[in-house]
Amino acid sequence: MSTIPTATISRLVTYLRILTGLENQGIKNTSSEQLADEAHVSAFQVRKDLAYFGRFGTRGAGYTVPTLRRELRRILGLTRAWSVGIVGMGRLGQAIAHYPNFDQYDFSLKAYFDIDPERVGGEVKGMPVHHVDDMPRVVKEKGVDIGFLTVPHGAAQDAADALVAAGIKGILNFAPSVINVPDDVHVEPVDFLAGLKRLSFYIVNPQLKEELA
Amino acid sequence: MSTIPTATISRLVTYLRILTGLENQGIKNTSSEQLADEAHVSAFQVRKDLAYFGRFGTRGAGYTVPTLRRELRRILGLTRAWSVGIVGMGRLGQAIAHYPNFDQYDFSLKAYFDIDPERVGGEVKGMPVHHVDDMPRVVKEKGVDIGFLTVPHGAAQDAADALVAAGIKGILNFAPSVINVPDDVHVEPVDFLAGLKRLSFYIVNPQLKEELA
Repeated sequence: MSTIPTATISRLVTYLRILTGLENQGIKNTSSEQLADEAHVSAFQVRKDLAYFGRFGTRGAGYTVPTLRRELRRILGLTRAWSVGIVGMGRLGQAIAHYPNFDQYDFSLKAYFDIDPERVGGEVKGMPVHHVDDMPRVVKEKGVDIGFLTVPHGAAQDAADALVAAGIKGILNFAPSVINVPDDVHVEPVDFLAGLKRLSFYIVNPQLKEELA
Repeated sequence: MSTIPTATISRLVTYLRILTGLENQGIKNTSSEQLADEAHVSAFQVRKDLAYFGRFGTRGAGYTVPTLRRELRRILGLTRAWSVGIVGMGRLGQAIAHYPNFDQYDFSLKAYFDIDPERVGGEVKGMPVHHVDDMPRVVKEKGVDIGFLTVPHGAAQDAADALVAAGIKGILNFAPSVINVPDDVHVEPVDFLAGLKRLSFYIVNPQLKEELA
């Protein structure tokens, strides 16, 4: 398992999204060709990505949608519920707290943290905002697994250190900052500027529009 | 140019970020091996990605950092300034409007739009919030090229239609919605849930941490 490319994991997430769409449409069977077409990769790539994790489907008959979807959810660790704590209850943290139907996505918001005395002790969407100093206790009590880092650039490393000290093993980093964490903690950056740069490319190369997602 | 994979464009954005980091450190030369190492891909992949756009660097001598960085900026359409309008000035739109040093990233916020009477006519960070009905005029006056869609799920298609009608050719879609646009308009989704699912995978597979970004 030690040589699975990050890009494969990203594509598994895409395949899962496509399978969920097919299942919602009541479609029972699919193929590497159909998944490839919707994911804008080659059918060979689909088969190669899946082959890292075992054998799925039947040669010639393709894949059963609910079965492959269940397998991908298992591989991605989505058959359990994840509990999320948000650090930084400014505009972005509040926007995420109000994200509609967040809980339907296998993730539950369980705790909010900040250091601003005007926010600590207050409530967001019916849940209290705790001081970062109380993070170890609150994380344990609420069973928080994942931290969302929504603090300003200058505060990102301190907030990440607090999450790590509280025992969090995964951080979704919305701050425009590279943060350093121990080897056993995983950080996933959310970088909307990267999407913006891809957008720039496709606007200056409109002839590529048809070929690609 | 018509068969360049979307993943190549994403990787060019990553290489550019790495080159900017090298330049900031005063490093003058690099290699496909160094770029590959930092981007967590193979050196072959780096050379293949760049080869879509021409010949860069010298066999054996690698790449000159400022030159390759300039070429990637040109390829990605980042040698010009992009003007951005935000549609939806709720919590998320306001969070983006307050994103620190936004202008240093080749993109300038030029206009805000909403339909909520409590927001229209008000100001965010010193700029007025216009009604979506005024979008064609404001987009033309301010030279807006790109729209950020930060409206709720149910309002996303209407807001996208308004952007398209106003002549916008690129949309960064923060709404958790698939939107339909004409072929000559490009949409780039910002999907933090995809990042969250990758995070889930790496938490349940901690042995993969070392190998990957």
